[in-house]
Amino acid sequence: MGMAERKISDAVIRRLPRYHRHLAALEKEGVERISSRRLSAELGLTASQIRQDLNCFGGFGQQGYGYSVPELRRELGRILGLQERYKIIIAGAGHIGRALLYYAGFKDEGFDMLAAFDVDEELIGQTVNDARVYHMDEMAVFIKNNQVDIGVIASPRQAAQQTADAMVENGIRAIWNFAPADIHTPEQVHVENVRLSDSLCVLSYYLQANRDEY
Amino acid sequence: MGMAERKISDAVIRRLPRYHRHLAALEKEGVERISSRRLSAELGLTASQIRQDLNCFGGFGQQGYGYSVPELRRELGRILGLQERYKIIIAGAGHIGRALLYYAGFKDEGFDMLAAFDVDEELIGQTVNDARVYHMDEMAVFIKNNQVDIGVIASPRQAAQQTADAMVENGIRAIWNFAPADIHTPEQVHVENVRLSDSLCVLSYYLQANRDEY
Repeated sequence: MGMAERKISDAVIRRLPRYHRHLAALEKEGVERISSRRLSAELGLTASQIRQDLNCFGGFGQQGYGYSVPELRRELGRILGLQERYKIIIAGAGHIGRALLYYAGFKDEGFDMLAAFDVDEELIGQTVNDARVYHMDEMAVFIKNNQVDIGVIASPRQAAQQTADAMVENGIRAIWNFAPADIHTPEQVHVENVRLSDSLCVLSYYLQANRDEY
Repeated sequence: MGMAERKISDAVIRRLPRYHRHLAALEKEGVERISSRRLSAELGLTASQIRQDLNCFGGFGQQGYGYSVPELRRELGRILGLQERYKIIIAGAGHIGRALLYYAGFKDEGFDMLAAFDVDEELIGQTVNDARVYHMDEMAVFIKNNQVDIGVIASPRQAAQQTADAMVENGIRAIWNFAPADIHTPEQVHVENVRLSDSLCVLSYYLQANRDEY
């Protein structure tokens, strides 16, 4: 409660999954304690950055004693809401949508892909990795009936905003957007964009900067 | 030359594709000039942020006169290296790898997906959207012979580092990593990570923070 109100910056939130992932791997290896110095070396961040980030949530670990790996992993998981299960639907059962349905890792992490929706008659009725593809017209009712938490937009750019609107109207509070479009939603709906083209542009920038340099 | 040496921060680089994308859309609509105020409103950034970012590259636009849309778009494209074409190969022809091969937008933006590599005999020999799937053993020679620019890692986590090593050894200077693994490369090789699970964790954080708040 107090935590959400303290308004933690998005940049901090974005580093938490990385901490969590690394700590989960250490825990699996049986590592029980880790110093902020070693953690920082392994993650390529400064120790003070890590301490600052964790202090946003009250701080963990004791001076000179490091962090308890399982405790910190569990606490970060709790902060990230990973103790819950989430229900997801995907708008768009094209290549990206289907690739996401096949990604087995999501289920292990608590994310259940319930169904996909499309307008392509060839795709409707198919079952992809246990999730059925329905007609897009059925999405609104499905979201309501199943109290879906997360809506994935894997539809064409032109359909993205309309799809987002339908998701929000029916109670979805988190959107994972793969369409190359800027989506507008009410403030309480969080949109997480995965912009594959932008990511390629960044690679192209570094290739060119490299070439100029050498 | 001077630019690459001035060492522009990664956070600035990451905003450039967004500017470029937005300006390209404006240009298509026939918009010729835009004020930094309007640009900032449309992008959801402060005008001073935008001015600061563009100043890293010498600055554009004139006080009180705004930016020329086609000029700024072209200049950003040049900075991002988008006037070049890039050759890409994909390690891993599973669902993610194939979804990337099918993504038509990349070709239009100058990125040519030449081939994919896998160890799965069922996939080897297939042609996916004009790109052939070869055995992973053929990757090294293919990279050398075709002077490939960008290597995509869409292989399982355990194979990721080894795949990256083979790419770097054969001359690749940019890696687009979709595997949920931290990859280590020499400094001059840029790695761009697409971490789908981390992105889902961020959504789960905001869902939980929201729930706590209301």
